[in-house]
Amino acid sequence: MNEKLVDYADLFRFTNSIFRSIGCSEQDADTATTVLVSADLRGIDSHGVARLSGYVRLYHAGRVNSTANVKIIHETPSTATVDGDKGLGLVVAPIAMKIAIDKAKAVGTGWVSVKNSNHYGIAAAHAMLALQEDMIGISMTNASALVAPTFSLERMLGTNPICVAIPAGSEPPFVADLATTTAANGKLEILQRKKEEAPAGWIQDKNGRGTSDAHALKSGGALLPLGSDREHGSHKGYALGAVVDIFSAVLSGANYGPWVPPFPAYVPMPENMPGEGIGHFFGAMRIDAFRPAQEFKNHMDHWIKRFRSAKPISPDQTVLIPGDPEREMESQRWRSGIPLHDDVVKDLTTLASEFNIASIF
Amino acid sequence: MNEKLVDYADLFRFTNSIFRSIGCSEQDADTATTVLVSADLRGIDSHGVARLSGYVRLYHAGRVNSTANVKIIHETPSTATVDGDKGLGLVVAPIAMKIAIDKAKAVGTGWVSVKNSNHYGIAAAHAMLALQEDMIGISMTNASALVAPTFSLERMLGTNPICVAIPAGSEPPFVADLATTTAANGKLEILQRKKEEAPAGWIQDKNGRGTSDAHALKSGGALLPLGSDREHGSHKGYALGAVVDIFSAVLSGANYGPWVPPFPAYVPMPENMPGEGIGHFFGAMRIDAFRPAQEFKNHMDHWIKRFRSAKPISPDQTVLIPGDPEREMESQRWRSGIPLHDDVVKDLTTLASEFNIASIF
Repeated sequence: MNEKLVDYADLFRFTNSIFRSIGCSEQDADTATTVLVSADLRGIDSHGVARLSGYVRLYHAGRVNSTANVKIIHETPSTATVDGDKGLGLVVAPIAMKIAIDKAKAVGTGWVSVKNSNHYGIAAAHAMLALQEDMIGISMTNASALVAPTFSLERMLGTNPICVAIPAGSEPPFVADLATTTAANGKLEILQRKKEEAPAGWIQDKNGRGTSDAHALKSGGALLPLGSDREHGSHKGYALGAVVDIFSAVLSGANYGPWVPPFPAYVPMPENMPGEGIGHFFGAMRIDAFRPAQEFKNHMDHWIKRFRSAKPISPDQTVLIPGDPEREMESQRWRSGIPLHDDVVKDLTTLASEFNIASIF
Repeated sequence: MNEKLVDYADLFRFTNSIFRSIGCSEQDADTATTVLVSADLRGIDSHGVARLSGYVRLYHAGRVNSTANVKIIHETPSTATVDGDKGLGLVVAPIAMKIAIDKAKAVGTGWVSVKNSNHYGIAAAHAMLALQEDMIGISMTNASALVAPTFSLERMLGTNPICVAIPAGSEPPFVADLATTTAANGKLEILQRKKEEAPAGWIQDKNGRGTSDAHALKSGGALLPLGSDREHGSHKGYALGAVVDIFSAVLSGANYGPWVPPFPAYVPMPENMPGEGIGHFFGAMRIDAFRPAQEFKNHMDHWIKRFRSAKPISPDQTVLIPGDPEREMESQRWRSGIPLHDDVVKDLTTLASEFNIASIF
């Protein structure tokens, strides 16, 4: 597997030009780029610029509106429902999260359900916007169906991630960002590229039997919910993915379950879609709506230190706090650049010539 | 294993008398009994009257205040922090949930973090209070440490359940109620009673290795987070359990992590406790704070019907909606009575003579 290293600033400039080229305003292009490249920085390579050409293809297919008018269509003091106007999720999501934050400033918490949107990048990019406001941030989204509920042969849910970002004091924040499946789809893509087998418990084949074939999804297989099988709690992973689907789409009027639009523009849309676009859900809770922020932060630092110093099974691997691996990756990639797989380099080079933009390679 | 069948009404009356005997007001005894016996009705036998003598022992040890003055100590229009005054969680939790519901009536959503409480029974009993108000209900609680985070030898978290209850229209509600572990502690107790082995992935031994010994927790072992091991996503189960701990206790000022007070009154309290009692967290979201309730219910019915009719792997086992098994159990036990294990019968008989109350057996 060959890779090229690229600087964050170069990757940002390039990506930004592409978003400008498909008609995004300067501000929207900046927002979309910040969100997209944050995935590459944090090591979630499957959700970064590897998807840039996918967004462009959705634009060409008329499924992404690059000049969307994102607006509130229903609200109360602590809630809003937002119509994304077919915009890039990378742009719609930060706007919706900002609405949640503003509502939290006014009444303690804010909760926003979004319809008529598209893929929003990594969940953490949005939830973490709350941190600088001394708020807890929550972000979730549905996605096209790849996951079979417990006992199901059919794929009914996306990998439907949940992110919860919690501020601390002198310690770095707690940032849990998790697909509600045993393994994220991005991990499967890595195995496919390396031609390796998938561990038992990640996938079922077209007959609903466990398989190690990392390509089984292409022949009627499915990802398994967190827990893998009934005996190990897959009904819990299924329930969590279902909650994400309902909060994101049934509350907002987006598509849900097997009707969520696919990300690849060449895959036909499902028939008889009950809603509009894909759905997200955001929350912001002001810490001082519960107790003085400094008291909370002192206890949060204490919590983090205690968990980090829990006696490890092996001295080689200490207990981590959610968000540790991504933060370390971010710090490393800031310093030494972001490695891009050759397939991604090829993809971005093609985009450069399509839009007549200077390549960064 | 021998069991006795007892009618709901008889069990309710008996349990109610016990709560009255330890000093609860008529209203508090009714509330506590309703919550406690709802676990027996729904088939969560580990959290029902099997724990009644445990609550009584906590009262005798001075750790439960049967005449607690539950009060709001901090609030905004959409939030409150509640001091449970060392009350029974079975009484404190419904009061806190009611506060969340009242706030949701006023500003769309309500969120309540609780400190200084005790074990609150099943999470679903509280979240489901929102359903009759056309609201989504959320309930979570921390609990004493039985669970080892990924890579940890130490037990740092409780089984920390999350319940999300969502109303539907003509379909029964969606009620997901899940411990954030691979297997709930109650399932382990059943194996211990039956002298059976635990499946791989449920427990680790005192050296952090997987074990099938259902008694391993008594010799330094630990329950595993949902996902079982790193390769199958245990870091996600750990993160979810941690979120429950932080929302329930760091937000409210209760004890967290390894400092959560144990349920058995004979187990000494942890040293250097950072907070007060155990913590809970509740949420209520008015459906019509997002969209007209009838529109939501129509889509929710559609969601439920589609998932229930997903093609099953085996014709013998259709795809379930979260809450189905408990609802069916409830309906059956209403009709034919609640089976109580001989150990529980013995326990209740001892309580009857302790308080000079007529036995129901």
